[in-house]
Amino acid sequence: MTNLPFTYDIIATEKNARAGVFHTPHGDLLTPVFAPVGTQATVKSITPAQLKETGASLVLSNTYHLYLRPGAELVAEMGGLHEFMQWPNPMLTDSGGFQVFSLSNTRKVDEEGVTFKSHIDGSSHRFTPESSIKVQEQLGADIIMAFDECATPNDLAYNKRAVVRTHNWLKRCVAAKSRSDQALFGIVQGGVFADLRRESAEFVSSMDLPGVAIGGLSVGETKAEMHAMLDVLHPILPTTKPRYLMGVGSPEDLVNGVLRGVDIFDCVLPTRLARHQSAFTPSGRINLMNAGFARDTQPIDSTCNCYACKNFTRAYIRHLVVAKEMLASTLISIHNISFLINLMNNIRAAIKAGNFELFAADFLRSYKTNKKQEPS
Amino acid sequence: MTNLPFTYDIIATEKNARAGVFHTPHGDLLTPVFAPVGTQATVKSITPAQLKETGASLVLSNTYHLYLRPGAELVAEMGGLHEFMQWPNPMLTDSGGFQVFSLSNTRKVDEEGVTFKSHIDGSSHRFTPESSIKVQEQLGADIIMAFDECATPNDLAYNKRAVVRTHNWLKRCVAAKSRSDQALFGIVQGGVFADLRRESAEFVSSMDLPGVAIGGLSVGETKAEMHAMLDVLHPILPTTKPRYLMGVGSPEDLVNGVLRGVDIFDCVLPTRLARHQSAFTPSGRINLMNAGFARDTQPIDSTCNCYACKNFTRAYIRHLVVAKEMLASTLISIHNISFLINLMNNIRAAIKAGNFELFAADFLRSYKTNKKQEPS
Repeated sequence: MTNLPFTYDIIATEKNARAGVFHTPHGDLLTPVFAPVGTQATVKSITPAQLKETGASLVLSNTYHLYLRPGAELVAEMGGLHEFMQWPNPMLTDSGGFQVFSLSNTRKVDEEGVTFKSHIDGSSHRFTPESSIKVQEQLGADIIMAFDECATPNDLAYNKRAVVRTHNWLKRCVAAKSRSDQALFGIVQGGVFADLRRESAEFVSSMDLPGVAIGGLSVGETKAEMHAMLDVLHPILPTTKPRYLMGVGSPEDLVNGVLRGVDIFDCVLPTRLARHQSAFTPSGRINLMNAGFARDTQPIDSTCNCYACKNFTRAYIRHLVVAKEMLASTLISIHNISFLINLMNNIRAAIKAGNFELFAADFLRSYKTNKKQEPS
Repeated sequence: MTNLPFTYDIIATEKNARAGVFHTPHGDLLTPVFAPVGTQATVKSITPAQLKETGASLVLSNTYHLYLRPGAELVAEMGGLHEFMQWPNPMLTDSGGFQVFSLSNTRKVDEEGVTFKSHIDGSSHRFTPESSIKVQEQLGADIIMAFDECATPNDLAYNKRAVVRTHNWLKRCVAAKSRSDQALFGIVQGGVFADLRRESAEFVSSMDLPGVAIGGLSVGETKAEMHAMLDVLHPILPTTKPRYLMGVGSPEDLVNGVLRGVDIFDCVLPTRLARHQSAFTPSGRINLMNAGFARDTQPIDSTCNCYACKNFTRAYIRHLVVAKEMLASTLISIHNISFLINLMNNIRAAIKAGNFELFAADFLRSYKTNKKQEPS
């Protein structure tokens, strides 16, 4: 096993923020990068052609879902995930661990792995570090993730156990890995506990993998706790490897993450919000169900050049929302993904120009965060 | 009021079949033509860009639905239907009559019009020939339809009354019409009764409108009855005007309709079937939920050049169907519409080449019709 193709070139830095290029077998990722999520081998409600038009480069798909349906062997038989879903650009699969802990009906964790029941039909299954790697090798993404245990962020005793287990499992994942064209990233755990995070970051860094992921954040802790953990990790993680903050994707979290050294993000937020009629704008989110948009001839975001914003009014999209037409989800998904991709492109340009700190302050001042619970 | 822009040039004929060009303010329609239906100002589950890629030229939208939601005044304020939904090519609206009779909760017909309750919220509304034309003028389609009464096809007494009323209402529609950039088509009724159909065809033809529609078919009568009525109408309808068979759109009905002199068709079938996982192929319909497609690496239809067939396997689309992903409806809709548009293009080419009768026989021999009830 060699990870030779997976080099990361840092192009520019500004304080902790970095702009780089991560080389994968399916093309270069210009970082910082946001990955839309195609849970079931499709980014919900849009085609790969529409996704490409948003400027997206990296797409994440979920091992747990694809293992259950249609099955990883079938995907392998169909030529792998890129070919199956017709996404010729870089892809990333998670390990299935997070979904086993968050979605499956019942689960039993032991040192060897996790036994769980499918959320679809209640059937019994088991994931181990070895089987997670095997499934991810069948799926064939460019970046694959170690099988880890994501603990409740504020439970110290649980996080201590989870970190030990996550590290043992990482060693087993590295040993199980057999494909040379996939980059395995280890995952740092440790909840909101600085000492545990340091310990985990040191261990994962010592494995010298092509990238390091930060797990167990954006799962219930406060924003201040998330930022504190990123600040703890920054000096420990290798500067020459991409850093991937898993499951994070609100505009403000992307900006704050890059400020703290993160290179890669993924989140279902842009497409999930779209299905709840909620759209990103530079001044915050708007809900297109709102009657105030009934006669609004502006696009969702007049600064945006996406297909939805170039062609359609808020009035039309509100009509689609009220009439429960699928095109509403499609258009808002296209916009929301484009918004985050454009944000990342602007962030990258700002880092290269040396004015990212100013950009971030401006953005965070203009963008009003939504205090209400995110739709789930 | 003048209908000057709406000329119809016959390019070629073969027996009763015709190939022509109908000129509208939003472009030429090459006939025979099939119009996909955008009930609520969107062809369900696809964008106008995807619709354009199928080769569609004419789109039908429903006056009843748009009157109720978002309201015709709002559409007019937004610049009309073409602008609102971003379909810059020809459009057609029906009169609302058919939906009032088939969809609304309760209705009361009198000589002046129809009072009905909305299927959305039970609110009370009234359509008259005058108000239908007014609403259609607010929507602004290129082709608008007279307000008619569509009777149960086999009820002679009802059809006699409905024909009289439809003719009276047509005169009122003609008188009410005020926009010169819209072509008003009259509608022939008469159920499955040859004498009534003849009487209606003679009356509607005498109005010298830019086109004639054939209503009250494909609503419960047999195929043989439909064909018999088309044969009755053929010698009566003016040869120089386009003939529009309303609500008809299965592949075999299109071929049989053109054989009997029809120029324009519309139907929800391709998109409705798509939402039931059913796809057209040259040998008949296939249901992509079928387990037999789980590992099928072929496209839906290997003779088709649409986006779905050029890029995706049946195995992938079946996965999307099973996983209840919206992309399944999108891809199958794109294919089904493309299939009917290609069929019409092939029919037109065959008429021009003088071998349409042979083409029709071949097509109808290969295409196995589905005996089961269409999804509704």
